[in-house]
Amino acid sequence: MSTIKEFSSFEKDAQGKVWIAGAGPGDPDLATVRVLKLLRTADVVFYDALGTHRLIAKARGKRIFVGKRNGRHQMSQEEINRLLAEAALQGKQVLRLKGGDPFVFGRGSEELDYLRERGIEAEVVPGVSSVLAAAAEAGAPLTERGVSVSCAIASGWPADNLVSPSSDTTVYVMAAEALSRIARANLEAGRPGTTPVALVSSASLPEARVWRRTLAQLLEGKEKFPPPLTVIVGESARSNRPGGPQTRSPVVWYTGTDAEAYKGEGRILHYPFY
Amino acid sequence: MSTIKEFSSFEKDAQGKVWIAGAGPGDPDLATVRVLKLLRTADVVFYDALGTHRLIAKARGKRIFVGKRNGRHQMSQEEINRLLAEAALQGKQVLRLKGGDPFVFGRGSEELDYLRERGIEAEVVPGVSSVLAAAAEAGAPLTERGVSVSCAIASGWPADNLVSPSSDTTVYVMAAEALSRIARANLEAGRPGTTPVALVSSASLPEARVWRRTLAQLLEGKEKFPPPLTVIVGESARSNRPGGPQTRSPVVWYTGTDAEAYKGEGRILHYPFY
Repeated sequence: MSTIKEFSSFEKDAQGKVWIAGAGPGDPDLATVRVLKLLRTADVVFYDALGTHRLIAKARGKRIFVGKRNGRHQMSQEEINRLLAEAALQGKQVLRLKGGDPFVFGRGSEELDYLRERGIEAEVVPGVSSVLAAAAEAGAPLTERGVSVSCAIASGWPADNLVSPSSDTTVYVMAAEALSRIARANLEAGRPGTTPVALVSSASLPEARVWRRTLAQLLEGKEKFPPPLTVIVGESARSNRPGGPQTRSPVVWYTGTDAEAYKGEGRILHYPFY
Repeated sequence: MSTIKEFSSFEKDAQGKVWIAGAGPGDPDLATVRVLKLLRTADVVFYDALGTHRLIAKARGKRIFVGKRNGRHQMSQEEINRLLAEAALQGKQVLRLKGGDPFVFGRGSEELDYLRERGIEAEVVPGVSSVLAAAAEAGAPLTERGVSVSCAIASGWPADNLVSPSSDTTVYVMAAEALSRIARANLEAGRPGTTPVALVSSASLPEARVWRRTLAQLLEGKEKFPPPLTVIVGESARSNRPGGPQTRSPVVWYTGTDAEAYKGEGRILHYPFY
Protein backbone atom coordinates (compact mmCIF):
# COMPACT_ATOMS: atom_id res chain seq x y z
CA MET A 1 0.00 0.00 0.00
CA SER A 2 2.79 2.43 0.74
CA THR A 3 4.24 1.67 -2.67
CA ILE A 4 0.97 2.55 -4.28
CA LYS A 5 0.73 5.81 -2.41
CA GLU A 6 4.30 6.75 -3.19
CA PHE A 7 3.73 5.96 -6.81
CA SER A 8 0.51 7.89 -6.75
CA SER A 9 2.02 11.01 -5.22
CA PHE A 10 5.06 10.79 -7.49
CA GLU A 11 2.76 10.76 -10.50
CA LYS A 12 0.78 13.65 -9.14
CA ASP A 13 3.87 15.78 -8.64
CA ALA A 14 5.38 14.92 -12.00
CA GLN A 15 2.13 15.41 -13.89
CA GLY A 16 0.28 18.55 -14.61
CA LYS A 17 -3.43 19.04 -14.64
CA VAL A 18 -5.98 20.20 -17.18
CA TRP A 19 -8.86 22.54 -16.36
CA ILE A 20 -11.58 22.29 -19.00
CA ALA A 21 -13.22 25.63 -18.38
CA GLY A 22 -16.07 27.67 -19.80
CA ALA A 23 -15.05 31.24 -20.69
CA GLY A 24 -18.63 32.47 -20.79
CA PRO A 25 -20.47 34.04 -23.73
CA GLY A 26 -17.89 36.64 -24.79
CA ASP A 27 -18.17 39.62 -22.43
CA PRO A 28 -15.01 39.22 -20.32
CA ASP A 29 -16.99 40.41 -17.28
CA LEU A 30 -19.16 37.31 -17.65
CA ALA A 31 -16.18 35.02 -17.14
CA THR A 32 -16.04 33.50 -13.69
CA VAL A 33 -13.52 34.51 -11.07
CA ARG A 34 -12.14 30.98 -11.33
CA VAL A 35 -11.30 31.44 -15.00
CA LEU A 36 -9.49 34.72 -14.25
CA LYS A 37 -7.43 32.95 -11.59
CA LEU A 38 -6.62 30.10 -13.97
CA LEU A 39 -5.55 32.55 -16.67
CA ARG A 40 -3.07 34.00 -14.20
CA THR A 41 -1.65 30.63 -13.08
CA ALA A 42 -1.78 28.30 -16.10
CA ASP A 43 1.45 27.54 -17.95
CA VAL A 44 -0.39 27.13 -21.21
CA VAL A 45 -3.87 28.07 -22.43
CA PHE A 46 -5.57 26.27 -25.33
CA TYR A 47 -8.50 28.36 -26.53
CA ASP A 48 -10.93 28.20 -29.38
CA ALA A 49 -13.39 31.05 -29.15
CA LEU A 50 -12.17 34.04 -31.07
CA GLY A 51 -14.79 36.07 -29.21
CA THR A 52 -12.79 35.72 -26.01
CA HIS A 53 -9.79 37.73 -27.20
CA ARG A 54 -10.14 40.33 -24.45
CA LEU A 55 -10.14 37.56 -21.90
CA ILE A 56 -7.24 35.63 -23.39
CA ALA A 57 -5.16 38.80 -23.24
CA LYS A 58 -5.03 38.26 -19.48
CA ALA A 59 -3.23 34.90 -19.84
CA ARG A 60 0.18 34.76 -18.20
CA GLY A 61 1.32 31.57 -19.96
CA LYS A 62 1.63 30.44 -23.55
CA ARG A 63 -1.50 30.86 -25.69
CA ILE A 64 -2.40 28.32 -28.35
CA PHE A 65 -5.40 28.88 -30.62
CA VAL A 66 -7.05 25.61 -31.64
CA GLY A 67 -10.45 26.80 -32.81
CA LYS A 68 -12.16 27.71 -36.01
CA ARG A 69 -10.91 30.43 -38.35
CA ASN A 70 -12.94 31.39 -41.39
CA GLY A 71 -15.33 28.58 -40.55
CA ARG A 72 -12.62 25.92 -40.70
CA HIS A 73 -11.20 24.03 -37.76
CA GLN A 74 -7.49 24.52 -37.25
CA MET A 75 -7.14 21.13 -35.64
CA SER A 76 -9.09 17.93 -35.25
CA GLN A 77 -10.54 17.04 -31.85
CA GLU A 78 -8.07 14.14 -31.68
CA GLU A 79 -5.14 16.52 -32.16
CA ILE A 80 -6.46 18.85 -29.47
CA ASN A 81 -6.90 15.91 -27.08
CA ARG A 82 -3.32 14.84 -27.70
CA LEU A 83 -1.89 18.32 -27.18
CA LEU A 84 -3.72 18.69 -23.86
CA ALA A 85 -2.43 15.32 -22.66
CA GLU A 86 1.14 16.04 -23.76
CA ALA A 87 1.23 19.36 -21.97
CA ALA A 88 -0.09 17.82 -18.76
CA LEU A 89 2.36 14.91 -18.97
CA GLN A 90 5.16 17.47 -19.21
CA GLY A 91 4.04 18.70 -15.79
CA LYS A 92 2.26 21.79 -17.04
CA GLN A 93 -0.81 23.43 -15.56
CA VAL A 94 -3.09 23.53 -18.59
CA LEU A 95 -6.14 25.69 -19.10
CA ARG A 96 -8.48 24.49 -21.84
CA LEU A 97 -10.71 27.49 -22.42
CA LYS A 98 -13.96 27.05 -24.33
CA GLY A 99 -16.65 29.53 -25.24
CA GLY A 100 -19.78 29.31 -23.05
CA ASP A 101 -19.94 26.18 -20.91
CA PRO A 102 -17.80 23.11 -21.71
CA PHE A 103 -20.73 20.69 -21.36
CA VAL A 104 -23.23 22.53 -23.60
CA PHE A 105 -22.21 21.71 -27.18
CA GLY A 106 -18.59 22.17 -26.13
CA ARG A 107 -17.28 18.63 -26.56
CA GLY A 108 -15.79 18.96 -23.09
CA SER A 109 -16.56 15.33 -22.33
CA GLU A 110 -14.43 14.05 -25.19
CA GLU A 111 -11.42 15.83 -23.77
CA LEU A 112 -12.28 14.78 -20.22
CA ASP A 113 -12.56 11.12 -21.23
CA TYR A 114 -9.33 11.18 -23.21
CA LEU A 115 -7.41 12.65 -20.28
CA ARG A 116 -8.97 10.48 -17.59
CA GLU A 117 -8.33 7.29 -19.56
CA ARG A 118 -4.65 8.21 -19.42
CA GLY A 119 -4.74 8.93 -15.71
CA ILE A 120 -4.30 12.66 -16.21
CA GLU A 121 -5.92 14.91 -13.66
CA ALA A 122 -8.69 16.95 -15.22
CA GLU A 123 -11.40 19.16 -13.84
CA VAL A 124 -14.43 20.74 -15.48
CA VAL A 125 -15.14 24.38 -14.61
CA PRO A 126 -18.64 25.45 -15.61
CA GLY A 127 -19.22 28.77 -17.34
CA VAL A 128 -22.08 31.04 -18.35
CA SER A 129 -23.53 29.32 -21.41
CA SER A 130 -24.40 31.48 -24.41
CA VAL A 131 -27.92 30.10 -23.92
CA LEU A 132 -28.19 31.93 -20.59
CA ALA A 133 -26.61 35.08 -22.02
CA ALA A 134 -29.09 35.09 -24.93
CA ALA A 135 -32.04 34.67 -22.57
CA ALA A 136 -30.81 37.58 -20.44
CA GLU A 137 -30.23 39.73 -23.52
CA ALA A 138 -33.72 39.12 -24.86
CA GLY A 139 -35.47 39.26 -21.50
CA ALA A 140 -36.83 35.85 -22.43
CA PRO A 141 -36.78 33.67 -19.31
CA LEU A 142 -36.06 29.98 -19.90
CA THR A 143 -38.65 29.17 -17.28
CA GLU A 144 -41.51 31.36 -16.18
CA ARG A 145 -44.25 30.68 -13.68
CA GLY A 146 -47.49 29.79 -15.44
CA VAL A 147 -45.85 29.98 -18.88
CA SER A 148 -42.85 27.65 -19.08
CA VAL A 149 -42.08 24.85 -16.62
CA SER A 150 -39.40 23.25 -18.78
CA CYS A 151 -36.74 24.39 -21.19
CA ALA A 152 -34.73 22.45 -23.76
CA ILE A 153 -31.45 23.24 -25.45
CA ALA A 154 -30.70 21.96 -28.93
CA SER A 155 -28.36 22.79 -31.77
CA GLY A 156 -29.08 24.31 -35.16
CA TRP A 157 -25.97 22.66 -36.49
CA PRO A 158 -25.91 20.38 -38.43
CA ALA A 159 -29.33 21.58 -39.58
CA ASP A 160 -30.50 18.18 -40.85
CA ASN A 161 -30.29 16.73 -37.33
CA LEU A 162 -32.66 19.28 -35.86
CA VAL A 163 -34.82 18.14 -32.98
CA SER A 164 -37.76 19.79 -31.28
CA PRO A 165 -38.00 18.46 -27.71
CA SER A 166 -41.39 18.61 -26.02
CA SER A 167 -40.47 21.45 -23.68
CA ASP A 168 -42.30 24.73 -23.17
CA THR A 169 -39.28 26.78 -24.23
CA THR A 170 -36.66 25.56 -26.69
CA VAL A 171 -33.35 27.28 -27.32
CA TYR A 172 -31.29 26.60 -30.43
CA VAL A 173 -27.62 27.53 -30.52
CA MET A 174 -25.60 27.91 -33.75
CA ALA A 175 -28.92 28.61 -35.41
CA ALA A 176 -28.16 31.22 -38.12
CA GLU A 177 -28.33 28.72 -41.00
CA ALA A 178 -31.25 26.72 -39.66
CA LEU A 179 -34.10 29.18 -39.23
CA SER A 180 -36.68 27.71 -41.59
CA ARG A 181 -35.81 24.19 -40.42
CA ILE A 182 -36.27 25.27 -36.81
CA ALA A 183 -39.65 26.74 -37.73
CA ARG A 184 -40.71 23.61 -39.62
CA ALA A 185 -39.60 21.22 -36.84
CA ASN A 186 -41.50 23.22 -34.24
CA LEU A 187 -44.64 23.58 -36.37
CA GLU A 188 -44.59 19.83 -37.10
CA ALA A 189 -44.27 19.22 -33.36
CA GLY A 190 -47.58 21.02 -32.94
CA ARG A 191 -46.64 24.56 -31.97
CA PRO A 192 -48.86 27.23 -33.54
CA GLY A 193 -47.46 29.58 -36.19
CA THR A 194 -48.07 32.48 -33.82
CA THR A 195 -45.53 31.10 -31.31
CA PRO A 196 -43.10 33.91 -30.44
CA VAL A 197 -39.42 33.61 -31.26
CA ALA A 198 -36.57 35.77 -29.98
CA LEU A 199 -33.42 35.81 -32.11
CA VAL A 200 -30.26 36.95 -30.34
CA SER A 201 -27.00 37.68 -32.12
CA SER A 202 -23.71 38.07 -30.23
CA ALA A 203 -25.33 37.83 -26.81
CA SER A 204 -23.45 39.79 -24.11
CA LEU A 205 -21.20 41.65 -26.57
CA PRO A 206 -21.49 45.36 -27.44
CA GLU A 207 -22.80 44.41 -30.90
CA ALA A 208 -25.58 42.26 -29.39
CA ARG A 209 -28.96 42.54 -31.09
CA VAL A 210 -32.38 41.05 -30.47
CA TRP A 211 -35.21 40.52 -32.98
CA ARG A 212 -38.77 39.26 -32.36
CA ARG A 213 -40.55 37.07 -34.87
CA THR A 214 -43.07 34.22 -34.96
CA LEU A 215 -42.60 30.65 -36.15
CA ALA A 216 -44.71 31.47 -39.22
CA GLN A 217 -42.43 34.39 -40.11
CA LEU A 218 -39.31 32.26 -39.71
CA LEU A 219 -40.73 29.57 -41.96
CA GLU A 220 -40.73 32.00 -44.86
CA GLY A 221 -36.96 32.01 -44.57
CA LYS A 222 -36.61 35.45 -46.15
CA GLU A 223 -34.51 37.09 -43.45
CA LYS A 224 -30.90 36.52 -42.47
CA PHE A 225 -29.54 37.31 -39.00
CA PRO A 226 -25.85 37.57 -38.17
CA PRO A 227 -24.11 34.71 -36.32
CA PRO A 228 -23.44 33.70 -33.61
CA LEU A 229 -27.21 33.40 -33.38
CA THR A 230 -29.27 31.90 -30.56
CA VAL A 231 -32.97 31.33 -31.14
CA ILE A 232 -35.48 31.10 -28.29
CA VAL A 233 -38.85 29.55 -29.20
CA GLY A 234 -41.87 29.66 -26.91
CA GLU A 235 -44.35 31.86 -25.08
CA SER A 236 -41.71 33.21 -22.70
CA ALA A 237 -39.98 34.81 -25.71
CA ARG A 238 -43.18 36.72 -26.41
CA SER A 239 -42.82 40.08 -24.83
CA ASN A 240 -40.75 43.01 -25.91
CA ARG A 241 -38.81 43.28 -22.67
CA PRO A 242 -35.12 43.42 -23.48
CA GLY A 243 -33.01 42.29 -20.55
CA GLY A 244 -29.59 43.43 -21.75
CA PRO A 245 -27.81 46.64 -20.83
CA GLN A 246 -30.00 49.69 -21.19
CA THR A 247 -27.37 51.41 -23.32
CA ARG A 248 -28.21 49.02 -26.12
CA SER A 249 -31.89 49.89 -25.92
CA PRO A 250 -32.50 53.43 -24.62
CA VAL A 251 -35.79 54.18 -22.91
CA VAL A 252 -37.85 57.02 -24.30
CA TRP A 253 -40.40 58.42 -21.89
CA TYR A 254 -43.03 59.90 -24.15
CA THR A 255 -45.56 62.27 -22.64
CA GLY A 256 -47.40 63.33 -25.81
CA THR A 257 -50.21 61.54 -27.60
CA ASP A 258 -48.54 60.08 -30.68
CA ALA A 259 -45.44 58.04 -29.91
CA GLU A 260 -45.12 56.69 -33.46
CA ALA A 261 -42.43 59.16 -34.54
CA TYR A 262 -40.06 58.15 -31.75
CA LYS A 263 -40.08 54.40 -32.35
CA GLY A 264 -36.59 54.46 -33.79
CA GLU A 265 -35.17 56.09 -30.68
CA GLY A 266 -35.53 53.09 -28.40
CA ARG A 267 -38.05 51.40 -26.22
CA ILE A 268 -40.95 53.80 -25.72
CA LEU A 269 -42.69 54.18 -22.38
CA HIS A 270 -45.87 56.04 -23.15
CA TYR A 271 -47.26 58.14 -20.32
CA PRO A 272 -49.55 60.72 -22.01
CA PHE A 273 -49.62 64.07 -20.15
CA TYR A 274 -47.60 62.65 -17.30
CA MET B 1 -38.78 66.43 -28.89
CA SER B 2 -36.30 68.36 -26.77
CA THR B 3 -38.81 68.29 -23.92
CA ILE B 4 -38.99 64.53 -24.13
CA LYS B 5 -35.25 64.16 -24.05
CA GLU B 6 -34.89 66.50 -21.10
CA PHE B 7 -37.58 64.66 -19.24
CA SER B 8 -35.99 61.36 -20.11
CA SER B 9 -32.54 62.34 -18.86
CA PHE B 10 -34.00 63.92 -15.73
CA GLU B 11 -35.69 60.63 -14.92
CA LYS B 12 -32.53 58.69 -15.58
CA ASP B 13 -30.49 60.81 -13.20
CA ALA B 14 -33.10 60.79 -10.48
CA GLN B 15 -33.77 57.08 -10.71
CA GLY B 16 -31.61 54.21 -9.77
CA LYS B 17 -31.26 50.95 -11.57
CA VAL B 18 -31.74 47.31 -10.68
CA TRP B 19 -29.39 44.54 -11.79
CA ILE B 20 -31.10 41.16 -11.60
CA ALA B 21 -28.00 39.00 -11.42
CA GLY B 22 -27.14 35.33 -11.07
CA ALA B 23 -24.67 34.63 -8.26
CA GLY B 24 -23.74 31.22 -9.61
CA PRO B 25 -24.10 27.84 -7.89
CA GLY B 26 -22.50 28.67 -4.54
CA ASP B 27 -18.71 28.56 -4.95
CA PRO B 28 -17.83 32.28 -4.86
CA ASP B 29 -15.18 31.63 -7.51
CA LEU B 30 -17.98 30.65 -9.89
CA ALA B 31 -19.55 34.09 -9.63
CA THR B 32 -18.90 36.29 -12.63
CA VAL B 33 -16.56 39.25 -12.59
CA ARG B 34 -19.63 41.40 -13.24
CA VAL B 35 -21.27 40.27 -10.02
CA LEU B 36 -18.12 41.07 -8.03
CA LYS B 37 -18.07 44.56 -9.53
CA LEU B 38 -21.76 45.06 -8.75
CA LEU B 39 -21.21 43.94 -5.15
CA ARG B 40 -18.62 46.67 -4.81
CA THR B 41 -20.76 49.43 -6.34
CA ALA B 42 -24.38 48.69 -5.39
CA ASP B 43 -25.99 50.78 -2.66
CA VAL B 44 -28.16 47.89 -1.61
CA VAL B 45 -28.13 44.14 -2.28
CA PHE B 46 -31.24 41.99 -2.04
CA TYR B 47 -30.23 38.33 -1.89
CA ASP B 48 -31.98 35.06 -1.33
CA ALA B 49 -29.52 32.22 -1.58
CA LEU B 50 -28.08 31.39 1.81
CA GLY B 51 -25.40 29.42 0.00
CA THR B 52 -23.88 32.65 -1.27
CA HIS B 53 -22.83 33.96 2.15
CA ARG B 54 -19.16 34.10 1.22
CA LEU B 55 -20.04 36.15 -1.81
CA ILE B 56 -22.43 38.48 -0.03
CA ALA B 57 -19.68 39.28 2.47
CA LYS B 58 -18.05 41.28 -0.32
CA ALA B 59 -21.00 43.67 -0.59
CA ARG B 60 -20.17 47.30 0.12
CA GLY B 61 -23.77 48.47 0.50
CA LYS B 62 -26.70 47.46 2.64
CA ARG B 63 -27.60 43.74 2.57
CA ILE B 64 -31.19 42.58 2.76
CA PHE B 65 -32.04 38.88 2.91
CA VAL B 66 -35.35 38.09 1.20
CA GLY B 67 -35.05 34.34 0.65
CA LYS B 68 -36.11 31.17 2.37
CA ARG B 69 -35.14 30.31 5.92
CA ASN B 70 -36.06 26.92 7.36
CA GLY B 71 -37.94 26.18 4.17
CA ARG B 72 -40.20 29.22 4.55
CA HIS B 73 -40.13 32.34 2.43
CA GLN B 74 -39.39 35.50 4.36
CA MET B 75 -41.29 37.63 1.88
CA SER B 76 -43.76 37.21 -0.95
CA GLN B 77 -42.62 37.83 -4.50
CA GLU B 78 -44.88 40.88 -4.58
CA GLU B 79 -43.15 42.35 -1.52
CA ILE B 80 -39.72 41.74 -3.06
CA ASN B 81 -40.83 43.39 -6.31
CA ARG B 82 -42.03 46.42 -4.38
CA LEU B 83 -38.84 46.74 -2.34
CA LEU B 84 -36.70 46.61 -5.50
CA ALA B 85 -38.80 49.31 -7.15
CA GLU B 86 -38.80 51.54 -4.06
CA ALA B 87 -35.03 51.39 -3.73
CA ALA B 88 -34.54 52.24 -7.41
CA LEU B 89 -37.04 55.10 -7.23
CA GLN B 90 -35.01 56.51 -4.33
CA GLY B 91 -32.12 56.73 -6.78
CA LYS B 92 -30.24 53.70 -5.47
CA GLN B 93 -28.09 51.30 -7.46
CA VAL B 94 -29.73 48.00 -6.58
CA LEU B 95 -28.26 44.53 -6.94
CA ARG B 96 -30.82 41.73 -6.89
CA LEU B 97 -28.68 38.65 -6.37
CA LYS B 98 -30.14 35.22 -7.06
CA GLY B 99 -28.63 31.76 -6.78
CA GLY B 100 -27.63 30.24 -10.13
CA ASP B 101 -29.04 32.09 -13.14
CA PRO B 102 -32.01 34.49 -12.79
CA PHE B 103 -33.87 32.99 -15.76
CA VAL B 104 -33.63 29.30 -14.78
CA PHE B 105 -36.29 28.78 -12.09
CA GLY B 106 -35.26 32.11 -10.61
CA ARG B 107 -38.42 34.15 -11.20
CA GLY B 108 -36.20 36.87 -12.61
CA SER B 109 -38.79 37.73 -15.25
CA GLU B 110 -41.43 38.60 -12.65
CA GLU B 111 -39.12 41.18 -11.14
CA LEU B 112 -38.03 42.42 -14.56
CA ASP B 113 -41.63 42.89 -15.69
CA TYR B 114 -42.64 44.65 -12.49
CA LEU B 115 -39.76 47.13 -12.79
CA ARG B 116 -40.10 47.73 -16.52
CA GLU B 117 -43.82 48.37 -16.24
CA ARG B 118 -42.93 51.21 -13.89
CA GLY B 119 -40.27 52.57 -16.20
CA ILE B 120 -37.44 51.57 -13.87
CA GLU B 121 -34.18 50.66 -15.53
CA ALA B 122 -33.38 46.99 -15.04
CA GLU B 123 -30.81 44.66 -16.51
CA VAL B 124 -30.46 40.89 -16.33
CA VAL B 125 -26.97 39.53 -15.65
CA PRO B 126 -26.68 35.82 -16.42
CA GLY B 127 -24.89 33.49 -14.04
CA VAL B 128 -23.62 29.91 -13.89
CA SER B 129 -26.76 27.87 -13.36
CA SER B 130 -26.66 25.08 -10.78
CA VAL B 131 -27.59 22.83 -13.71
CA LEU B 132 -24.21 23.53 -15.33
CA ALA B 133 -22.38 23.17 -12.02
CA ALA B 134 -24.02 19.79 -11.39
CA ALA B 135 -23.10 18.55 -14.86
CA ALA B 136 -19.48 19.62 -14.32
CA GLU B 137 -19.39 18.01 -10.88
CA ALA B 138 -20.70 14.69 -12.19
CA GLY B 139 -18.73 14.72 -15.42
CA ALA B 140 -22.11 14.27 -17.10
CA PRO B 141 -22.19 16.46 -20.21
CA LEU B 142 -25.57 17.95 -21.09
CA THR B 143 -24.82 17.25 -24.74
CA GLU B 144 -22.41 14.67 -26.10
CA ARG B 145 -21.63 13.78 -29.66
CA GLY B 146 -23.40 10.58 -30.65
CA VAL B 147 -25.13 10.32 -27.27
CA SER B 148 -27.13 13.45 -26.52
CA VAL B 149 -28.08 16.10 -29.07
CA SER B 150 -30.56 17.85 -26.80
CA CYS B 151 -30.94 18.59 -23.14
CA ALA B 152 -33.94 19.70 -21.11
CA ILE B 153 -34.19 21.41 -17.74
CA ALA B 154 -37.17 20.84 -15.50
CA SER B 155 -38.04 21.24 -11.85
CA GLY B 156 -38.67 18.59 -9.22
CA TRP B 157 -40.74 21.10 -7.29
CA PRO B 158 -43.69 21.01 -6.96
CA ALA B 159 -43.41 17.26 -7.53
CA ASP B 160 -46.95 16.82 -8.85
CA ASN B 161 -46.20 19.07 -11.83
CA LEU B 162 -43.30 16.93 -13.01
CA VAL B 163 -42.66 16.83 -16.74
CA SER B 164 -40.39 14.64 -18.81
CA PRO B 165 -39.52 16.50 -22.02
CA SER B 166 -38.49 14.40 -25.01
CA SER B 167 -34.80 15.33 -24.82
CA ASP B 168 -31.84 12.96 -24.70
CA THR B 169 -30.68 14.33 -21.35
CA THR B 170 -33.03 15.77 -18.74
CA VAL B 171 -31.90 17.67 -15.67
CA TYR B 172 -34.16 18.20 -12.67
CA VAL B 173 -33.39 20.89 -10.14
CA MET B 174 -34.84 20.98 -6.60
CA ALA B 175 -35.26 17.23 -6.98
CA ALA B 176 -34.59 15.79 -3.50
CA GLU B 177 -38.26 15.15 -2.72
CA ALA B 178 -39.23 13.97 -6.19
CA LEU B 179 -36.98 11.01 -6.96
CA SER B 180 -39.55 8.28 -7.43
CA ARG B 181 -41.81 10.66 -9.37
CA ILE B 182 -38.91 11.58 -11.63
CA ALA B 183 -38.25 7.88 -12.23
CA ARG B 184 -41.92 7.15 -12.93
CA ALA B 185 -42.34 10.10 -15.32
CA ASN B 186 -39.26 9.07 -17.28
CA LEU B 187 -40.20 5.37 -17.40
CA GLU B 188 -43.72 6.30 -18.56
CA ALA B 189 -42.13 8.47 -21.26
CA GLY B 190 -40.44 5.33 -22.57
CA ARG B 191 -36.96 5.41 -21.10
CA PRO B 192 -35.66 1.98 -20.04
CA GLY B 193 -35.15 1.18 -16.36
CA THR B 194 -31.44 0.82 -17.01
CA THR B 195 -31.16 4.53 -17.96
CA PRO B 196 -28.31 6.02 -15.92
CA VAL B 197 -28.94 8.80 -13.44
CA ALA B 198 -26.40 11.06 -11.75
CA LEU B 199 -27.49 12.69 -8.50
CA VAL B 200 -25.52 15.74 -7.45
CA SER B 201 -25.84 17.40 -4.06
CA SER B 202 -24.42 20.87 -3.34
CA ALA B 203 -22.73 21.18 -6.74
CA SER B 204 -19.58 23.34 -6.66
CA LEU B 205 -19.38 23.49 -2.86
CA PRO B 206 -16.79 21.67 -0.72
CA GLU B 207 -19.50 19.29 0.50
CA ALA B 208 -20.49 18.35 -3.06
CA ARG B 209 -21.27 14.68 -3.64
CA VAL B 210 -22.22 12.60 -6.66
CA TRP B 211 -24.10 9.30 -6.75
CA ARG B 212 -24.85 7.02 -9.73
CA ARG B 213 -28.11 5.11 -9.98
CA THR B 214 -30.55 3.89 -12.63
CA LEU B 215 -34.18 4.90 -13.18
CA ALA B 216 -35.24 1.47 -11.87
CA GLN B 217 -33.30 2.03 -8.65
CA LEU B 218 -34.78 5.49 -8.15
CA LEU B 219 -38.29 4.16 -8.61
CA GLU B 220 -37.90 2.05 -5.47
CA GLY B 221 -37.66 5.30 -3.57
CA LYS B 222 -35.68 3.78 -0.70
CA GLU B 223 -32.79 6.22 -0.66
CA LYS B 224 -32.64 9.84 0.42
CA PHE B 225 -30.05 12.28 -0.87
CA PRO B 226 -29.30 15.64 0.72
CA PRO B 227 -30.61 18.85 -0.88
CA PRO B 228 -29.93 20.96 -2.85
CA LEU B 229 -30.12 18.04 -5.25
CA THR B 230 -29.81 18.11 -9.04
CA VAL B 231 -30.66 14.95 -10.97
CA ILE B 232 -29.31 14.23 -14.45
CA VAL B 233 -31.15 11.53 -16.41
CA GLY B 234 -29.82 10.05 -19.64
CA GLU B 235 -27.01 8.10 -21.27
CA SER B 236 -24.54 10.94 -20.84
CA ALA B 237 -24.86 10.49 -17.06
CA ARG B 238 -23.69 6.90 -17.47
CA SER B 239 -19.98 6.87 -16.85
CA ASN B 240 -18.15 7.16 -13.60
CA ARG B 241 -16.10 10.14 -14.65
CA PRO B 242 -16.35 12.79 -11.96
CA GLY B 243 -15.64 16.22 -13.33
CA GLY B 244 -15.32 18.15 -10.09
CA PRO B 245 -12.11 19.01 -8.26
CA GLN B 246 -9.81 16.05 -7.86
CA THR B 247 -9.55 16.64 -4.13
CA ARG B 248 -13.09 15.38 -3.75
CA SER B 249 -12.25 12.16 -5.59
CA PRO B 250 -8.58 11.17 -5.25
CA VAL B 251 -7.03 9.01 -7.93
CA VAL B 252 -5.40 5.76 -6.84
CA TRP B 253 -2.92 4.37 -9.33
CA TYR B 254 -2.87 0.66 -8.58
CA THR B 255 -0.06 -1.43 -10.01
CA GLY B 256 -0.86 -4.77 -8.36
CA THR B 257 -3.33 -7.40 -9.48
CA ASP B 258 -6.22 -7.03 -7.04
CA ALA B 259 -7.51 -3.47 -6.71
CA GLU B 260 -10.55 -4.47 -4.63
CA ALA B 261 -9.05 -3.48 -1.28
CA TYR B 262 -8.41 0.09 -2.37
CA LYS B 263 -11.88 0.94 -3.63
CA GLY B 264 -12.61 3.14 -0.64
CA GLU B 265 -9.57 5.30 -1.30
CA GLY B 266 -10.87 6.98 -4.43
CA ARG B 267 -11.14 6.42 -8.13
CA ILE B 268 -8.87 3.53 -9.01
CA LEU B 269 -6.77 3.53 -12.16
CA HIS B 270 -5.64 -0.05 -12.58
CA TYR B 271 -2.33 -0.50 -14.41
CA PRO B 272 -1.05 -3.98 -13.38
CA PHE B 273 2.74 -4.15 -13.26
CA TYR B 274 3.06 -0.72 -14.71
